[in-house]
Amino acid sequence: MNSTQVTTVNAPIASSPIPGVYLIGAGPGAADLITVRGARILAVADIIFYDALIDMSMLEWCTSTNMVPVGKRCGAHSSSQRFINKQLVDAASKNLVVVRLKGGDPLIFGRAQEEIDALEQAGVHYEVVPGITTALAASAQLKQPPTTRELSRTLTLTTLPGRCSHEDHKTSIYYMARDQLTEVANTLMAQGYPSNTPVCLMESVSLPSERGFACTLDELSLGDVHHHFLDRQPVVVMIGEVYRKQLQLLSPLIRSESNFAALQAVS
Amino acid sequence: MNSTQVTTVNAPIASSPIPGVYLIGAGPGAADLITVRGARILAVADIIFYDALIDMSMLEWCTSTNMVPVGKRCGAHSSSQRFINKQLVDAASKNLVVVRLKGGDPLIFGRAQEEIDALEQAGVHYEVVPGITTALAASAQLKQPPTTRELSRTLTLTTLPGRCSHEDHKTSIYYMARDQLTEVANTLMAQGYPSNTPVCLMESVSLPSERGFACTLDELSLGDVHHHFLDRQPVVVMIGEVYRKQLQLLSPLIRSESNFAALQAVS
Repeated sequence: MNSTQVTTVNAPIASSPIPGVYLIGAGPGAADLITVRGARILAVADIIFYDALIDMSMLEWCTSTNMVPVGKRCGAHSSSQRFINKQLVDAASKNLVVVRLKGGDPLIFGRAQEEIDALEQAGVHYEVVPGITTALAASAQLKQPPTTRELSRTLTLTTLPGRCSHEDHKTSIYYMARDQLTEVANTLMAQGYPSNTPVCLMESVSLPSERGFACTLDELSLGDVHHHFLDRQPVVVMIGEVYRKQLQLLSPLIRSESNFAALQAVS
Repeated sequence: MNSTQVTTVNAPIASSPIPGVYLIGAGPGAADLITVRGARILAVADIIFYDALIDMSMLEWCTSTNMVPVGKRCGAHSSSQRFINKQLVDAASKNLVVVRLKGGDPLIFGRAQEEIDALEQAGVHYEVVPGITTALAASAQLKQPPTTRELSRTLTLTTLPGRCSHEDHKTSIYYMARDQLTEVANTLMAQGYPSNTPVCLMESVSLPSERGFACTLDELSLGDVHHHFLDRQPVVVMIGEVYRKQLQLLSPLIRSESNFAALQAVS
C-alpha cells in the first residue's frame, strides 16, 4: 500500500475575518454541513442576519448575541429586500464583521444579486462563502449521483416548471417548485421524457425530519401533490433515469397521503 | 431591530462516526471549504484514500498517518477503479473509519457510482458527505450568481462539449472541458447563443494560485485555448449573459498568452 507519512496534524490555520459583510451559505439544514470557513466566521461575527429557512441549530455556531431574523419563507412575513440591504450596509459601516446567513448556497436561487449590488454600490468590503446547495445534499442523502457516465452527463438546476429541461432528457432538479409539480410533469412529458421517468421528492433535506418520496412522471402529473408536504418546508424535486433504483427504496408518493394528516398535525 | 438573545454558544455536538466508508467531498481546494462534518470525520479517520486533485493542505485535517493517494488526474498515473474499490472494501472489513476524499462534491462528475456499487455489493456501511462543487466555489469567488431573476433561472452543469445547453440559452458551466473549448463555443453558437455571450474560465478555484480569464464565445472559438492553462490544474468554464460584468473585471483571455510561458515555467 502506497502510504505517506504525515507529520503535521494541526487543522489548517484560520485568519481572522476583516470587517465587512460575509454572505455565507448555511447548507441544506444540518448544522455540520456548513463549511469550516463559514462556521469560523459565524463564531466571531458581531452581527448575524439569518434567513427564516435556517435551522436554528446552525445558530449555535455563533457567539454574538446580535442575531437578526430576516428573509423570506413561503408566504410568511418577511423583511423587504431593500430593508435587508440597508441593514447590511449600515452594520458594515460600523466596522463590524457582519454575516448574512442564507440557506443552501447563497448564489443558487438565493436572490443574492440585489444584496451584492447594494454592497458594491456602498463600497463595502464583502465576501461570498459558498454552501452546500440542497440538490447536492439531497443527492448525498440518497447516495445517488445525479450524473453517471452511462445515463446522464448533464445536470440542470432550475426554478422554472414551465420550461424545458435539457434536450437530451437528462437529470433535472427543481427548486421551489412544490406548488407547480403538475406543470413540471406535464411540461417534461410534452418534451418527450418517458412517462415512467423516475422522480424523487425530498423534504427538509439533512434534518431529522427529512422525508423522501418517489413516483413516476405520470404519477406526478395526476394531481397537485403539494399537499403531501409539510407547510413551510423546502422540497427539492429530482427527475431523471438515474433515480430508477429510488422507486424501490423511497416511499411511494402515491400511497403516502394516508400518513399525511397525522404528520401535518404534529408539525 | 428585531434581535434575539441566544444563550447557547457551543458548536453543535458531533457524534463519532461509526466504522464504514465515508465518501467525502473536499470542496474546490481551499482547506477550509470542506464541510464541518467532513473535517470532523477526517480528524478521526483510520485511513484516508485521497484523489490526486486534493490540495495537500486539506490533509492537515487528518490525524491518521495512513494516507493513500489514489485517483486520476489529467493524464497522470492513476490507480485503477477496481483496485480503489477493493481497497475501500478491504479497509472497511477491518472495522475501520475509512475516508474516500474526493475533490469538489463526490457525486458531481466524481465517478462515485462505481465505488457506491462496490460498497453496496459488499454490504459495507457507507455514507456520503457532500462538498462544495467547483462551479459554486467559482461563483463565490467571482461574487456572481449563475442565476438571476432577470437573466437566467436555469443552471446547467455538464462535461459534454458537443451537446446543447438549456434551450433558453441560460447559464452553463462546463467541467473537465479544457481541451475541448473550441467545440464548446462552436456548439453553443450553432444553437443560437449570441457570439458575444460572456465566458469566464477559472483555474485552481479557491487556491492561492487561482486565475480567472474572460472572453466572448466567438473569441473562445478562435482556437485551442487549453494552452493558456497550467498543466494538471482543473479549469471550470462558465458561460452566460450573467457574466457580462466579468468581461471587464477578469483578465482578457485573448491577451493572456504573453504571460503564460513565465507562469508555466514556475509551476
